Parts: sequence; structure tokens; C-alpha cells
Amino acid sequence: MARHQANSLQEFELIRSLEDRFARRAPGLVQGIGDDAAVIETSAQAWWHLTTDLLAEGVHFDLRSAALESVGYRAAMANLSDIAAMGAVPRYLLISLAIPQTMKRPHIHELYRGLMKACRVYDVALIGGDTSASKAGLFLSITLVGTTNAHRALFRHGAKVGDRIYVSGTLGDSLAGLKLLMSDTTPHPLAKQKTTLLRSHRRFLIRRHSHPTARVAEGRWLNEKQLASAAIDLSDGLSGDLRRLCEASRVGAEVELEKLPISPACRAYASAIEVLPIQLALAGGEDYELLFTASPRDCDTIERQARTRGYRMTRIGTIRPHRFGIQMTSDGRTQPMPATSYEHFR
Amino acid sequence: MARHQANSLQEFELIRSLEDRFARRAPGLVQGIGDDAAVIETSAQAWWHLTTDLLAEGVHFDLRSAALESVGYRAAMANLSDIAAMGAVPRYLLISLAIPQTMKRPHIHELYRGLMKACRVYDVALIGGDTSASKAGLFLSITLVGTTNAHRALFRHGAKVGDRIYVSGTLGDSLAGLKLLMSDTTPHPLAKQKTTLLRSHRRFLIRRHSHPTARVAEGRWLNEKQLASAAIDLSDGLSGDLRRLCEASRVGAEVELEKLPISPACRAYASAIEVLPIQLALAGGEDYELLFTASPRDCDTIERQARTRGYRMTRIGTIRPHRFGIQMTSDGRTQPMPATSYEHFR
Repeated sequence: MARHQANSLQEFELIRSLEDRFARRAPGLVQGIGDDAAVIETSAQAWWHLTTDLLAEGVHFDLRSAALESVGYRAAMANLSDIAAMGAVPRYLLISLAIPQTMKRPHIHELYRGLMKACRVYDVALIGGDTSASKAGLFLSITLVGTTNAHRALFRHGAKVGDRIYVSGTLGDSLAGLKLLMSDTTPHPLAKQKTTLLRSHRRFLIRRHSHPTARVAEGRWLNEKQLASAAIDLSDGLSGDLRRLCEASRVGAEVELEKLPISPACRAYASAIEVLPIQLALAGGEDYELLFTASPRDCDTIERQARTRGYRMTRIGTIRPHRFGIQMTSDGRTQPMPATSYEHFR
Repeated sequence: MARHQANSLQEFELIRSLEDRFARRAPGLVQGIGDDAAVIETSAQAWWHLTTDLLAEGVHFDLRSAALESVGYRAAMANLSDIAAMGAVPRYLLISLAIPQTMKRPHIHELYRGLMKACRVYDVALIGGDTSASKAGLFLSITLVGTTNAHRALFRHGAKVGDRIYVSGTLGDSLAGLKLLMSDTTPHPLAKQKTTLLRSHRRFLIRRHSHPTARVAEGRWLNEKQLASAAIDLSDGLSGDLRRLCEASRVGAEVELEKLPISPACRAYASAIEVLPIQLALAGGEDYELLFTASPRDCDTIERQARTRGYRMTRIGTIRPHRFGIQMTSDGRTQPMPATSYEHFR
């Protein structure tokens, strides 16, 4: 449940305030608006996690550069990633589609193929949905249900001053992949650069964009072993999502830029287009990695168990008091992290 | 979870077949695709009912004739009606919006006001959602969760040959209200007729369109007292929804047209525009009344208890064998019911 590319930030602020105004305590409600998923106690033993994401053509994907199979795959993955960030097991999926007249049978088939491929990876069942015509563009809305044991979930709130900040995987690959896809289909100043990139790097980056991986196993592990104090998934980029975690936990954060995990392919791409790799890592969205915090006493356990399980987990910073704000350090210099929000494409 | 206004019937058939292909048994899943809501056993005591509806500007509503408050209200009500048809208690709501640039703060406020007004009537809590920009038009996607005791719900399947067919409320009012609203905003051959209609009738019909009532109390009563053998809500019109109930139950049906409940206001409107009231009742959609079947031995109880509770329930026909098809009788003549599907506006 991310907030993507505002018309203007004011509109989204308004919705936030309307939600706050209308949201209220309800029987069984553990967590309402304000986390990756809503949480409800369905029995003394179980919590249910509900998340929903709406993807709009021309905002979240561009059918000139994205294959429909990938659009479906990524739509499912966006929701799977929200469930992963709660430490929950994804279970049931509902899909709503608004389909423009121009989309014909093979297109719809492609879209479903991508959706179902992502679901199969996580053993999620399609249980319902709705289908409508659209006068303009393709819209997908997905609702995903996940489960955990009762009183056992990861939330955005819970980070404490002194906790260490971790991310899974590598950052910026998805943005690099998107840029490569776009330079293939539209005349683009970067087009000339692509030949300087190794074919394997290129394939890796495009794959990371078109078929991202939700960190479901990693989230379950952190939750079941109670190793994380707070967690969120990286859908809108490190800057925006770290800010959300900090707001929910009422803390600040210090990120060491040199520690951000960046893949060799992303470094090569950054070099080819003559930007700093760190810029891609900070600006990138849709990485669907986990960002989480942990008490210093759990760091050894996390790093040891992650190695054993083959999970890449990188310590990138430390939780600071709220008044510290969100700062990034590099070469011994500290400056505020820019409040950018990822735009899916331009 | 209705299927609204196909691009072409083939596209929706395809999605149906894809859903059938990808849907599968999953732990806890009681009812997947193919009813008003999906049903999951959340504990030995409880079932959860999940339904989702996607509403698209230019397909389900036209902002030239519909107020945003009403768009929000009706969007919530479409889902509440699905939950009503399961005999469930509506509990939790998630809202996703794709908002065009042209929509500003007062518009969004209006939309939420309508959504929340409908939720308050049924004591439903807003627990989550997603917000996105839209390049073209407003899209709303709502997911609603309802609950029942385990092993206690109304399904589309279950109607038996000889069962009586009932509807709640009156039919065709919403369509009449929509036509009145449209004749107010666009030059329309019917515009001249509106003056011949009593102001109270006009207000009633417009209200029935802009602020319909989901029959939640009625559905709970039928479910808790185990009085109905099958049920569906009337979102796409009697013809289409009766067909769905009959398909799910593998039966046919005979509807007595003279018995269809039609309000005085709808009769007056039909007379003003020189059509048969029955045509509005059959063609109308978004009535959000309940259509249900009951064993003949329960009819007396249903009719007696409905009177006591102030529910209007009208017996309109009888379930027949599958080979009978869906027929309607009038003046002693029997003919197949046309397979029309309601289009929200033209």
C-alpha cells in the first residue's frame, strides 16, 4: 500500500488526513491505515494481513516499453512485497481489471500469465476479482491476504534509537533496468550508452525491473525469529520509505552512503551513463527489497543466520533520535537526505 | 464482484476461463471465484467473505450527471450489497483511488464523504487503501471484508427445483433515477417528460439511484434463520443475475412478470416516457436488491417474518429444471427471458 507519484503532494496529504479522520478503532483491528498492510485478529491464534495496490497505465507502467506479462508479474509482486514486509505468509489474491477496448485476448492472456506466474512462486491462490471496461488505459487493482500467528508481525513502528538499519539485496537495479527498457523503445540521450554495457549486466538489470523478487522468506524469518524491531518494503525508494518507517517509529536515521549495497551491473550502468551509483540506489524505486531495523544485540544473529540461509542483508546505518532527522553521511560529511519520491517513469 | 459492461462478451468469457484455469483449491478456501464474495474459513468458528469491485469513470459513472458524493456512496454500496448477498456482516473496507489531475481537494473530499457515509450506515471501518495518479479518468477499487459464523452463508448455488424465487424491495427505480439525472444534464428526447412527473416521485427515483440501500439486515436474517436456499444481489439487472444464480445452482427458472415489485414512482416514470414498467424492472441494474430462493415449506415463515420486520419481500417465480431454461410468463404466455446485461449509462 504505497503512495505513488502524486498529482501534487497536497492531494495525497489531503487523502491522508481524510483517512485519519475516517479511520477508527474497530473490533479485531490490530493495525489500520499507516503500514504496509492492515492487520486484523481473526482468532486467538491468527492475524490476517490485507494490502491493496492500484496500478495505472501511464503512471506505473508504459505499455510501449513494458510487456504485459511483466506488468502482471510486477503488480502481483508489489503486493507480495507489502505482505513480506509484515513478515506474513501470502495466501489469497483478488484481481480487478479495467480493460481498454484496444486490449484483445492475447493481451489479457499475457497479463494473467504474469500475475499467475508470480502467485505460483509464493503458492498464492486467486480467489476473486472484478472485470470492467475502461475508456482510457489499463488499470489493475490487487488485494492480497497474508497470515501470521497472532501477536507476531513486523510493523513500521518499533524502531528504537541505536537500532541498526538493514536492507536486503541490492538497490537501484530496477531503476537501471527501467531506463534500459525505455532507451530501447524511445529515442533517448542514453541510447548510445547501452552498447558499452555487458550483455549479462543488461539482462540482469532488465530482469530485476521486469521480474522483481518479493522478500517473503526473508520477512518470515525476521518475524518468526523476532529479529527485527521495524520493517517496510522498498517500493518508492530508500529516501521515501525510510522516512515512512522513521515517522511511524518517531525516530530519525543516519545512513552511510558507502554501505548501500549496489550490484556490479548497476555500477557498470551508472558508469556508462556517467552518474554516481549511489544516485541510482537513492532514486530507485520498485526494488522490493526489505528495509528493517534491529537491536544491536541481534546483529550478530542476523548476519550469521542470513549467511547460512543465503540471504543478502547489509547494515546501512543507525536509528537516531527524532530531532536528528534523516541524514546521510559520505566521506565523513553529513547532510539531510533529500525527500524525493520515486516516479515510475517519465 | 459483478462483471460490468464488457468490451465484448468474448473478452469476459476469456477472463472467466483464465480464472477457472488459475483458480485452485487452497487451504481454508470455502468458495473461490463464482459467487458474490470469496469465502475463507479463518477459524473453526468463523468464515470471512471478501469482495472487490472496480468502478471506472465513463463506464460506471459519468461525472457530468453524477455528484462525486454519490459516486463514492454507490461504490461502497456495490460492495456492501455483495456482502449482503452472502448473508454476512460487513466489517472492513479498503479503498484504492486513481485520481486524474483535474480532481482537486474539494472533489476528493466529496468522494470520501460519500464513501464514508455509506460505511457509517453499516458500521464498516476503513482500514487501508492505495492512492495513485491517473492519466485518464477516475478509478475506484474497493475491497470489503464481511464475516459470518462458520458453515453459515448464502451462496448462488443451492436453489432446488420447486423452490420459490423472491426479490427484496422494488425493481427499476435506479435505472429510472439515472435516466432522470441524465436528462437534466444532456439534451435528451426525454427531457420534456420530466415535468409530467410528480416532484416526490422524481426525488424518490433519483435518490434510489444516487443513494441505494444494500440489504444487509435482510441478508443476515435469511442466513441466520436458514430461510434461503440460494441468493445473489441485483447489480446487473434481474435477467443477468437470475441467470448467474441458475447457472451456479444448475437449474432453470420461471418468472411471473406481473409479480415483479415496481414502485408507484417507477410506474409513473414509465408512463411518462411511454414504456411498460416491466421493461424498466427487467432492464434496470444497480437496484442492489436481494434475489433469493426458498423451499416452499419456508415461504410462510419468510413472508410472516418479513412483515414483522418491515422487509418488503416479493415472490416472483419458481425454480424449474435446468432444461427449462429461464422463462418469463405474462398473461398466460411463456417466453425466454432475454439475456440482457445492464449498461450503467449510454
